[in-house]
Amino acid sequence: MSPSPSLSRIPFGAGGDDREVHDDTSSSRSDLGAGGGTAMRLVVPLQGVVQGRGGLVLGSVIPCALFYFFQLYLRRKKPSSSPPTSPSPSSGDLPSLSVIPRTTSRSFFSPRSGSLPAPVSSHTAAANKSDACRLSAGHRRFVDDPYHPTSNPDGVIQLGLGNNQLSLDLVRDWLERNVNASLLKGRNEDMGLGGRETYLQYDGLMDLKIAVADFMGQVLQGSVSFSPSQMVLTAGAASAIETLCFCLADPGHAILVPSPYDSEARAHIYWLDPLNINIRDDIKNVITNVFKGLAKERRTNFKKLKVTKLIPMYHGKEIGKNIHLIFDELLVGSVHEENNTCMNIAKILDAEDFDKSRVHMIYRLSEDISLPHIHVGVIYSLNDSILASAAKFTRFSSISVLSQRVLVTMLSDKRFISEFLHLSRARLINMHRLFARGFKGLNIDCVNGDGGFRCWVDLSKFLRSYSEKGELEMWEKLLDSAKVNTTPGSSCRCIEPGWFRLCFAALSENDIDVVMGRIRRAIDEGHKI
Amino acid sequence: MSPSPSLSRIPFGAGGDDREVHDDTSSSRSDLGAGGGTAMRLVVPLQGVVQGRGGLVLGSVIPCALFYFFQLYLRRKKPSSSPPTSPSPSSGDLPSLSVIPRTTSRSFFSPRSGSLPAPVSSHTAAANKSDACRLSAGHRRFVDDPYHPTSNPDGVIQLGLGNNQLSLDLVRDWLERNVNASLLKGRNEDMGLGGRETYLQYDGLMDLKIAVADFMGQVLQGSVSFSPSQMVLTAGAASAIETLCFCLADPGHAILVPSPYDSEARAHIYWLDPLNINIRDDIKNVITNVFKGLAKERRTNFKKLKVTKLIPMYHGKEIGKNIHLIFDELLVGSVHEENNTCMNIAKILDAEDFDKSRVHMIYRLSEDISLPHIHVGVIYSLNDSILASAAKFTRFSSISVLSQRVLVTMLSDKRFISEFLHLSRARLINMHRLFARGFKGLNIDCVNGDGGFRCWVDLSKFLRSYSEKGELEMWEKLLDSAKVNTTPGSSCRCIEPGWFRLCFAALSENDIDVVMGRIRRAIDEGHKI
Repeated sequence: MSPSPSLSRIPFGAGGDDREVHDDTSSSRSDLGAGGGTAMRLVVPLQGVVQGRGGLVLGSVIPCALFYFFQLYLRRKKPSSSPPTSPSPSSGDLPSLSVIPRTTSRSFFSPRSGSLPAPVSSHTAAANKSDACRLSAGHRRFVDDPYHPTSNPDGVIQLGLGNNQLSLDLVRDWLERNVNASLLKGRNEDMGLGGRETYLQYDGLMDLKIAVADFMGQVLQGSVSFSPSQMVLTAGAASAIETLCFCLADPGHAILVPSPYDSEARAHIYWLDPLNINIRDDIKNVITNVFKGLAKERRTNFKKLKVTKLIPMYHGKEIGKNIHLIFDELLVGSVHEENNTCMNIAKILDAEDFDKSRVHMIYRLSEDISLPHIHVGVIYSLNDSILASAAKFTRFSSISVLSQRVLVTMLSDKRFISEFLHLSRARLINMHRLFARGFKGLNIDCVNGDGGFRCWVDLSKFLRSYSEKGELEMWEKLLDSAKVNTTPGSSCRCIEPGWFRLCFAALSENDIDVVMGRIRRAIDEGHKI
Repeated sequence: MSPSPSLSRIPFGAGGDDREVHDDTSSSRSDLGAGGGTAMRLVVPLQGVVQGRGGLVLGSVIPCALFYFFQLYLRRKKPSSSPPTSPSPSSGDLPSLSVIPRTTSRSFFSPRSGSLPAPVSSHTAAANKSDACRLSAGHRRFVDDPYHPTSNPDGVIQLGLGNNQLSLDLVRDWLERNVNASLLKGRNEDMGLGGRETYLQYDGLMDLKIAVADFMGQVLQGSVSFSPSQMVLTAGAASAIETLCFCLADPGHAILVPSPYDSEARAHIYWLDPLNINIRDDIKNVITNVFKGLAKERRTNFKKLKVTKLIPMYHGKEIGKNIHLIFDELLVGSVHEENNTCMNIAKILDAEDFDKSRVHMIYRLSEDISLPHIHVGVIYSLNDSILASAAKFTRFSSISVLSQRVLVTMLSDKRFISEFLHLSRARLINMHRLFARGFKGLNIDCVNGDGGFRCWVDLSKFLRSYSEKGELEMWEKLLDSAKVNTTPGSSCRCIEPGWFRLCFAALSENDIDVVMGRIRRAIDEGHKI
């Protein structure tokens, strides 16, 4: 391993396709080796065609590697309009499937699962196949038995999410003082609830766009200014990503995503069947090779690239004219260290000689203001054609006018926002320091992730086997005996086993000692085995 | 014409494909004749393949009839992954295109439209082609110059929307009293804003589902009870329709929609490329013929049917096992006359011998409680598989937790809801009576539409030519000289020219005389021509 200086210690690489992460990643990983390098690390064992949501048709009905060759055969035959009906899961072949309880948020309320008398679409079959999600399983355990320092000290501690609760009190206080005013003292008699202003304008109120553009500029500390008219607002960042990709990509196009990435982001683009690239690789090489690889597979139509902010900016100029760049600036306002990579979008936007109609940005506003469940995402683009169509598609994902009114008032409250950003960053920095210090005490490496809420810890030396199987065993042990839910690196397509992603922003300071104590005990137990 | 008793006076039938409604509908109409009958009236001049959103690939890039044969050719060749790039509009061939200003909500803020240096997807090309929407054009005129009885008595009166503003005051008052409490005095310390309850649960809070199920039962006056666990909540009814269709349909499947239907609903399913059927026809015949027709076109995979509530319930038992029924009960709580067709879902759900896993319902909650812009739609289904996958897809369309909290409190306020439903219905009935009386004074037929906010008027005797062209001229005249924006029947795929749909629930009582005066003058002017 020869880590590059700026990206050192972050576990890079592309794991197997996520859908078969419990099944056959050992084989896809063995193709790769575990180290990074400068050669391309493109792993496309099961990628299907990108068909917008339709990508599921081929891409998601196949639960394990057994169907790899079947899919190859199908793809040769061209995307057919009648995909194979979902095969029954052959759990005997999949040793680690039993590790993951097959639960979903849905089945929580509706546990019945009888036979299906009526045919459903392949999307439904695919979605219902993908239940074995660690994210859900661990979260379920937490919901059923949540840790509380006094009332439930033996409960599950949730470090597997990605939300910042450190500054909820600020938001709560503001809402308490202002929510009535923001809704009821709007400039319209009817509070904008039934008015002409909001009608047929699914992509967000102009007032909100102006406020968001201001806020984004403030978050980036004035290094770039954003225009409200280049903005489309959607009900959440997941929708922003999906809408933008839908506007950019056609069936047969590819979307490349550097790994490791947010396992939630993964779920967002899951339906789009992204290709996985190793962010340590030279992006120009990657693209050349992707073109070659796709041409081999008769996917000559490749023209899309989704990259996140970790791709060095200068690459943007080098890559082909047909390639779009999507900057996934989800949490730029919550970055708590000197991390200039977040400024890529600013640099790109400032560059004179770059074709700006190929640059797009996603911003998860609601996360940065500690209101994740208000679900507001931003598509920012300098391509008017993309903007215009994205605005139309927001018909399927428009933001509640209540949220919009509240946000307009909140973001326009400059004093509050400035104070909030200041305090929120200070709290994140503090928690991150305490968290890192705790792991240092355990002699465990803890490195900063790309978001401000999380870090990565390297537990590889405690694995029984240096493999994804070993990693999943560790994940299970942490959940079962230590009662700490984490995100195993494999679910973020990290190729080095043993990395776990932890969110420290949903804890309080006092919880850190509890977490460290539990992890220490779990590791000690492990040593006894 | 031999109108059936229960459906008399509603202008039935299938117009041409909406995308070419300005261009070649006269030709598609001439194929049909104007009358109803019992024979099949399936009009599929330009329907593409249904590919979820991917249907746009073929279905929407074709702006006018010139491309009809081109598409036929393409379809024979099978849906290709590289659709033709959008041709430049040849406006010379399209006489009525100039009638419709090509504006969109988007271009309102971002008027630039340079050449596109980077390739975009076919969805984008299609969406940007479909700008010539009467809905937008008329609404723009209204937004720019809105009527007000005192401050702008010569402004545009908007009768083209579908929102009920008659009871906004009730909702406003309630919010003023309760919004703080509903948000801040929730049972959770953190207002549910950052809490575990909402995380990963994109399909709506259980509290809200319980409240919605109660409300729906109340709206249907106890004739049927709904289970919260059979419910998925989405950010708006458009998304509910789209999500449900995505879960039900695969590429190659068809979605049948009886016409005339809500031009907004049309936009919702526009991307799904619905087939159009005449609701006056015998549904069993229609389906038989559709199967035949599709078999001819090698669309043998047909298994989906979307029908709205106007399809008599008993047909449900007769149609094939492979067909799903979607009941589009958008405004059931706002129906102001004895209209038993709305109870279809209740009858179906009560029927012992009907396969309930093929019955689904869409409900536009936010419209029924006068909060359209809060964007809450409901998918109700007895098919657990569909529900489970729909719940997952709500990741792309989840409701703001602010809206959810407010709605939980509002819907649980039984006294308010009961009073609201009573008053709202009384006001709708009153406005409808006054409106109908006004048209009676003009000697114009005015019949009730299927929603509670609108009616249909027959202006065919005033058309210069009994054709869609004549209808559009009339629409333009009403907008230009009378300054009244309406919805021409053709945009709802009504086959009889001269019908216009008017929404009376955004007016006040005093405005009715103004509307009638303006329409009378426009008609009188027309007689002089």
